[in-house]
Amino acid sequence: MISESKKKKISESTIRRLSLYYRVLSILEKENYETVSSKELAKREKLTPAQVRKDLSFFGSFGTRGLGYPVSELKKQIAEILGLNRGWNVALIGVGNIGSALVGYKEFQRQGFNIKLIFDNDQRKIGSNHKGIIVSDIRNLESDLKENNIQIVVVAVPATVAQYIVDDVVKAGIKGILNFASVNLKVPDDVFLRNENMSMELEYLSFALSNLKDVKGES
Amino acid sequence: MISESKKKKISESTIRRLSLYYRVLSILEKENYETVSSKELAKREKLTPAQVRKDLSFFGSFGTRGLGYPVSELKKQIAEILGLNRGWNVALIGVGNIGSALVGYKEFQRQGFNIKLIFDNDQRKIGSNHKGIIVSDIRNLESDLKENNIQIVVVAVPATVAQYIVDDVVKAGIKGILNFASVNLKVPDDVFLRNENMSMELEYLSFALSNLKDVKGES
Repeated sequence: MISESKKKKISESTIRRLSLYYRVLSILEKENYETVSSKELAKREKLTPAQVRKDLSFFGSFGTRGLGYPVSELKKQIAEILGLNRGWNVALIGVGNIGSALVGYKEFQRQGFNIKLIFDNDQRKIGSNHKGIIVSDIRNLESDLKENNIQIVVVAVPATVAQYIVDDVVKAGIKGILNFASVNLKVPDDVFLRNENMSMELEYLSFALSNLKDVKGES
Repeated sequence: MISESKKKKISESTIRRLSLYYRVLSILEKENYETVSSKELAKREKLTPAQVRKDLSFFGSFGTRGLGYPVSELKKQIAEILGLNRGWNVALIGVGNIGSALVGYKEFQRQGFNIKLIFDNDQRKIGSNHKGIIVSDIRNLESDLKENNIQIVVVAVPATVAQYIVDDVVKAGIKGILNFASVNLKVPDDVFLRNENMSMELEYLSFALSNLKDVKGES
């Protein structure tokens, strides 16, 4: 168990790496690995073994020298610190291309992000069934979010209307919002807002292919 | 202009922040801002002004004290370093939920990622039209990638077949691959492989709502 005060000091980039470890550990668990070394974890995520050991030292000294970390136990510990073990009620707003992809994304459910409600303003979509969920009218947003005890809202609407939607989401008392629109949204200080940038990894590839090609060739 | 040797030393986390700045600058440009301060850039991405100034010092001293950075010029400089100004020929493999969303994602094209080819193995999808692109048969993958001078391949196929597909992509001489499947793929040392983790931002929200709620409340 990690103390509350220790958790508050974890940096954003550490959280990001914990997400990466969690992803690798989930895959290793599926492949029936029982243990994993810091070297192997580092290699799979292009980090240094020292960085991995430092990150995982948060969880006390339960890695064994020569044997490595127990896969399932480490995964459980990371799930606990990331809050994935508790399960979250999620609502999705906007069921266009991206919204539809998110409803079908099985990883979300595996990690405890349960999409309970879907909203749209398009009369042709309202009432339709997406993976067992009936699309609700955006006009009932505030009351529906409250009544269904939604904790996290995913916003996948056009940039032009994203701020209006988010204002209503905030009014409903939601403290966690994930935004896919390419626009900077304003939320009160007590609301956590994250922007999903689908281009970021492609931009890294663009940088790498432009500048690092010969670096790689050397290795 | 930045020297080649300097570019090679830029860390992955700096590239990630350059992507964030690029995103904010694109939005500011759309909103007709002419200049932006390091403080404003920092606020919009939850970084410190010192970090922003340090990152942007790569570009020489063209920010003006009191006035800030010229939005369009800085955006252009970051595009240059990220290689976004040259335009990339991209192929997409797998046109399920995620693949379909990617084809419709306008940001890609704006940033010079031009989807030229789409592949699938489903006879019902082959020959169909997605945003003006006819879906090709995966059986012709290697020759089609070569003939169309594709530089980056996006893999949005089930985890169980992703490695086979990626092996063929590598055989075709592709050096940049973005993978959406939840599986660790092996590629030769001279190929850049990135894994898109759609859950990462939700995991951050989960962590924040679990551990940082009272920290935010204090601010």
